[in-house]
Amino acid sequence: MKNKLYAAIDLGGTKIYTVLADSQGAILAAARLPSAAALGPDAVMQQMAVSVGTVLDEAQLNREDVLAVGVCAAGFFDWQEKVMVSSPNLPGFSGVALEKRLSSLLGLKVLAENDANAAALGEARLGAGRGCSEVVYVTVSTGIGAGLIINGRIYRGGRGFAGELGHMVVKPDGPVCGCGRRGCLEAVSSGTAIARAAKEAVNQGAATILKTAADGQLTAPAVFAAASQGDAVALSVLQHAVHYLGMGLVNVVNMFNPEVIVIGGGVAEAGETFLSPLSEIIAARAVPPAASSVALKKAQLGVKAGVAGMICLLAETDG
Amino acid sequence: MKNKLYAAIDLGGTKIYTVLADSQGAILAAARLPSAAALGPDAVMQQMAVSVGTVLDEAQLNREDVLAVGVCAAGFFDWQEKVMVSSPNLPGFSGVALEKRLSSLLGLKVLAENDANAAALGEARLGAGRGCSEVVYVTVSTGIGAGLIINGRIYRGGRGFAGELGHMVVKPDGPVCGCGRRGCLEAVSSGTAIARAAKEAVNQGAATILKTAADGQLTAPAVFAAASQGDAVALSVLQHAVHYLGMGLVNVVNMFNPEVIVIGGGVAEAGETFLSPLSEIIAARAVPPAASSVALKKAQLGVKAGVAGMICLLAETDG
Repeated sequence: MKNKLYAAIDLGGTKIYTVLADSQGAILAAARLPSAAALGPDAVMQQMAVSVGTVLDEAQLNREDVLAVGVCAAGFFDWQEKVMVSSPNLPGFSGVALEKRLSSLLGLKVLAENDANAAALGEARLGAGRGCSEVVYVTVSTGIGAGLIINGRIYRGGRGFAGELGHMVVKPDGPVCGCGRRGCLEAVSSGTAIARAAKEAVNQGAATILKTAADGQLTAPAVFAAASQGDAVALSVLQHAVHYLGMGLVNVVNMFNPEVIVIGGGVAEAGETFLSPLSEIIAARAVPPAASSVALKKAQLGVKAGVAGMICLLAETDG
Repeated sequence: MKNKLYAAIDLGGTKIYTVLADSQGAILAAARLPSAAALGPDAVMQQMAVSVGTVLDEAQLNREDVLAVGVCAAGFFDWQEKVMVSSPNLPGFSGVALEKRLSSLLGLKVLAENDANAAALGEARLGAGRGCSEVVYVTVSTGIGAGLIINGRIYRGGRGFAGELGHMVVKPDGPVCGCGRRGCLEAVSSGTAIARAAKEAVNQGAATILKTAADGQLTAPAVFAAASQGDAVALSVLQHAVHYLGMGLVNVVNMFNPEVIVIGGGVAEAGETFLSPLSEIIAARAVPPAASSVALKKAQLGVKAGVAGMICLLAETDG
């Protein structure tokens, strides 16, 4: 008997990452295509179908060899109604029945999931959270998101909107967030927030190497680079971001008492500069029994976390 | 065949509330005894045993009619090790194996649980959260606690310490909390915090009726009473407390996407003054899809919530 195969798609605003894998998560083929998010749902659906064809071709297999397809994307996915309520990176997707439409296009069963939820499951089962059943996955990149693994499974809340850590209010009088509200974690600790704070410092004439290093493109990685050279402004900007991210994690520890918090995303990947102060903040500020029973770990699966989680989800759904 | 009966004890710092009930939660007998918490675990264990005897006598039944006993208490209860790690109201209980000791005293199976968790289950199954599987119960009294019901069951986290909403950091530069840390929700929104803020205002000579109304005993209920008479200082103190409680609930909504948040505890019982602005804050500040799918409800079971939850827990544990 042939091994069960699944296709999994991580649908982003700029790329579509697709894999073909067996039920254990072993990847047979992978493809990364640019996504035409700006062209709207129809074009993106077609691209996803093409991406599945691409990985099948690469593995010299046919659609009949695939049991089901998983797709994860950033956005508020209504788990009850099975529609995308809204997505920051995918204009025109509000109200789109992702599963139904992709399914009729591919002629295969499709399962859709929020990307942070999928990545959380991937890291919990196959990555940094392996062996743990209570896992919080936090992704820090241009935005901040989270996925909750409770009793070993994705926790979606009543409708599918759980895990919005990026909009936890950590600084009530803080800067306005992209969501329109004030003081959200994302508005003070995301890559976008780090870059913005650095720009403000540069514009105010602070003495920093960032000014030249940045050359108009003052990004979070540039701030990390400057900080590693001891630049005081960069260090101060990062310290502020890490402080509030730490507050957010303290709140997560106090509410969930997770066994492990897995930190992923581009900003966190920058490394120990970010991770080690977070452990100290949790130890100092979370309630002691919960603080002493949580481990903070760096994500292990990188950009594969989402598709890995979708494979796990498909495998457990199909039995 | 006789109906299965359970005893449930809510062990507080000043009283022991004990009921005898059937597996549906119907109460056959109840007793409220003062607790000798200051005398330590041995004395309290004896009192709990006496309280079980009292409800049995009242119902004219014997210990043999009881299948098991549940006990809930405030504190960090380590669910894995089955010991009380620490309790604010029960001095000397650190490291006490509550279940084992009460069980050997009573000759009955004993199940122990954190009191907010028990109350959460009680309200979710038999109170304001009836019919919902994703419920957050928040108790606002001298302190602030929470219990999480996820997929219809108590969520304890990795070790049993989940739900510490009282120590969510909502005002990083705020007052020092009883836990020694700064800016916890409990330090700005609990009954204790409300009373302290009112005292500070009175001591600073603010124009308020609280000065006379209080007569040295400036409690949260006195602040509520003054506010209901339009006292500006009392209203301002309450507004501040409600604002930060609202921030805490916003964070809960964003992280859990619960179907319902049930608010209980002495302070919340004070009524609509507290509840209606909270709904407005959630609507204005939580992420829209989660905000629009949550209901905020007043607890229905009052002081019976904890024992009701323990009965539910015993019934589902025993099958």
